[in-house]
Amino acid sequence: MKEDIRNKLQNVLEDRVFHKTEDCISYGYDGSFGQHIPDFVVQVQSTEEVQSVVRIANEFNMPITPRGASTSLSGGPLPVEKGIIMDFSQWDHYLEIFPEDLLIKASPGVITGDIHKLADEHNLMYAPDPSSSSICTIGGNLAENAGGPRGVKYGVTKDYVLGLEVVTAQGEVIQTGGNTVKNVTGYDLTKLIVGSEGTLGVITEATLRLIPKPLATKTAMILFDDLYTAGKSISTILTSGVRPSKMEILDNNALNRVEDYAKLDLPREASAILLVEVDGDPTILDKELQTIKEALLQIGVDKVDIAENKEDEDKLWQVRKLVSPAIVESGYTKISEDVTLPLSKIPDMFKKIDEIKQKHDLNIVVFGHAGDGNLHPTLNTNMRDQNEVERVEDAVEEIFSYAVQLGGTLSGEHGIGTMKRAFMTKELGESGVQFQKAIKTALDPNNLLNPGKIFPIAGEERLVLRNE
Amino acid sequence: MKEDIRNKLQNVLEDRVFHKTEDCISYGYDGSFGQHIPDFVVQVQSTEEVQSVVRIANEFNMPITPRGASTSLSGGPLPVEKGIIMDFSQWDHYLEIFPEDLLIKASPGVITGDIHKLADEHNLMYAPDPSSSSICTIGGNLAENAGGPRGVKYGVTKDYVLGLEVVTAQGEVIQTGGNTVKNVTGYDLTKLIVGSEGTLGVITEATLRLIPKPLATKTAMILFDDLYTAGKSISTILTSGVRPSKMEILDNNALNRVEDYAKLDLPREASAILLVEVDGDPTILDKELQTIKEALLQIGVDKVDIAENKEDEDKLWQVRKLVSPAIVESGYTKISEDVTLPLSKIPDMFKKIDEIKQKHDLNIVVFGHAGDGNLHPTLNTNMRDQNEVERVEDAVEEIFSYAVQLGGTLSGEHGIGTMKRAFMTKELGESGVQFQKAIKTALDPNNLLNPGKIFPIAGEERLVLRNE
Repeated sequence: MKEDIRNKLQNVLEDRVFHKTEDCISYGYDGSFGQHIPDFVVQVQSTEEVQSVVRIANEFNMPITPRGASTSLSGGPLPVEKGIIMDFSQWDHYLEIFPEDLLIKASPGVITGDIHKLADEHNLMYAPDPSSSSICTIGGNLAENAGGPRGVKYGVTKDYVLGLEVVTAQGEVIQTGGNTVKNVTGYDLTKLIVGSEGTLGVITEATLRLIPKPLATKTAMILFDDLYTAGKSISTILTSGVRPSKMEILDNNALNRVEDYAKLDLPREASAILLVEVDGDPTILDKELQTIKEALLQIGVDKVDIAENKEDEDKLWQVRKLVSPAIVESGYTKISEDVTLPLSKIPDMFKKIDEIKQKHDLNIVVFGHAGDGNLHPTLNTNMRDQNEVERVEDAVEEIFSYAVQLGGTLSGEHGIGTMKRAFMTKELGESGVQFQKAIKTALDPNNLLNPGKIFPIAGEERLVLRNE
Repeated sequence: MKEDIRNKLQNVLEDRVFHKTEDCISYGYDGSFGQHIPDFVVQVQSTEEVQSVVRIANEFNMPITPRGASTSLSGGPLPVEKGIIMDFSQWDHYLEIFPEDLLIKASPGVITGDIHKLADEHNLMYAPDPSSSSICTIGGNLAENAGGPRGVKYGVTKDYVLGLEVVTAQGEVIQTGGNTVKNVTGYDLTKLIVGSEGTLGVITEATLRLIPKPLATKTAMILFDDLYTAGKSISTILTSGVRPSKMEILDNNALNRVEDYAKLDLPREASAILLVEVDGDPTILDKELQTIKEALLQIGVDKVDIAENKEDEDKLWQVRKLVSPAIVESGYTKISEDVTLPLSKIPDMFKKIDEIKQKHDLNIVVFGHAGDGNLHPTLNTNMRDQNEVERVEDAVEEIFSYAVQLGGTLSGEHGIGTMKRAFMTKELGESGVQFQKAIKTALDPNNLLNPGKIFPIAGEERLVLRNE
């Protein structure tokens, strides 16, 4: 049978079909962990090719997993039930801007950073800015509804998708949404499919919304003596009347990792730092940072350094950008969590993570997009140390449970994938999961599109790090 | 059988069940047209009551249509297949603000204007501002994904809904989303249900996002000698680097109706006027309007009047607010269309509407939210003049077809309801409609929730104004 499938795939894609283990092995991982070798890898380059592959998959009842640059931190592109990896990275030929309509159209393999560049050339902005934007593809951003630092003011990927071309599980092409910001013509399939992790349809083109590019930015670094006040300052800033464009937090641990890694002369003793960017007309930015400074003084926070010039500002943002590389440097497996909380609950979560860290004797680095309550507690794990692995699994479960208890959510921007599916029922309840499953079953009755993601697997009640 | 249902409903709701024609008749209309008398009206006041009513409806296979203040312009709350009207207007007891989390929780019968007021008291803003906000309910806004003038900068209702409590077609309660701006935990049911016009579930509570309230606003009125330039100016303004918070257009016809109605000393000779509001720090607003003024000069537009003070500004916005009352004044039936276009296509639509007006000898007033391409061509129809009614039907069809041809959409913010269902296939194609229907069938297999809305009815190929 495998030969029959191969022949059919090769009829459509010729030499863009791979089946040997040595060719397929590098398509079996992503930015999370675990390795799953697919039966086939196909490199699609057109909507028609996607349709043909989906039809062949239907004929042989073989799973399909779409894949971009695979920077996913939740297992989105892992072919956990084997089958066909549909690689979009070779399909990047279409990227067009319509400046008068304030929109861009792109094929799924386009690098997100290229979209930023093109918009920028026209004095416009594509706002979503996942930290991996220089290497990730827009297709992956759409699948996972990627976020980024600008989320606090500008929202996430979903907020900038006006329309999609989608190949359904049956191989039909549909258009969702369109070219307009307002659209209430039927159900909002665009926002249903963005973030559905490739489980409801295969995205083959996106129409993205642009906004006028802010004229300037200015950044302040705020130092805190304790984590609780750092957490509290977030609501204080957001209710001061100013709308920051970025608000990123690093705890002492994250700060020191970056300092070890890059020697930037950072205040190693601070319990946490907050980087706050405001954007807009240059004449107003100083005044806005002043407003924030005064609001913080009211809660006893007085260490606010405002970047004097562009160079200083870039240096501050360098700190945030180096957190992940600094953590990866250790060589151990990096488990990036993604809990998101109501703003007022951030201090509680910081306190809890500190307790968990002590209790399980673990090294947990906390950083994240403070302004939208999105924290990334990150654990480094030596996967050869079974005892440590189990402590990490316990810690992750405790963090999730507490997030849900605080009215937060398991994932703000990384997606559920394989990493968080075991916790879905905890957050959504049985009826909530069933409601979601009804949609999946209606649109993909044979469960061919990226199976093994989002929905809990029977018997799997927690994150299991060592299951290969 | 009707007696059995009545008894069961009364067991739950006591004297909040109506069945006599004289009691039910006023629940059979909305802001569009057509009258449909339901079998029952029930006034629900809790989630449990909603669940009970849904279960009774299931038992007797009786349709349910949720209803708020019924300002809908698309037929959303009309009980076109009779059954039970679930009236939410008596359920307004829950409205709570969580200022530190920047959110509000509300039960469905709360008046949208009360949400604005509560947010305002805390220096926060609930951004969606449908023109009917002083009388409409948040439940209706959620059902139809209501928009409003601030859409150009701040988006629509959907962009401010973080979570919902929903009673499913089976009478189960589910929670969608949560209390956080970022949330990718499974499919985005919140954004699927908002705008689904009560066809996928009954919303019983909403968690709404607030943002810092802008410190000030400033408004300019721009006069145009021809409609084409008016249309072109919209893209010009939006690519000038400034992000207006409102951009409303009135054509000569709309302008003169308002002047007839209210005597505001308006420039009757202008082909169109554009009202542009900017918001933010007061020290920057003049500069921003100046930037817009300069950009417009480049395309030959030089009549820009900037409001000197708050009073002048209020007077300008009065003009926009009086358009609908001025049209209603005629006494004829008002058909409000809601086409939405890519920004660069607005001039073409103005030209087309002018042609259609001449061709069918009709009076068409055009106004709308220019900044997001959302126009409301509005026709006054004497329903007793069969010949005119047919010309209106033709005109509406031509406007819709042209909008779709230009890459636009049938409805920007009013919804599909009964008014536009005949045109759905034209915009979405057969596969697109089937994809939507698969979701409806999966979640509401017995088609009990607001039947007759959104989906095309066999044989109905255009808007039929006189079908009662």
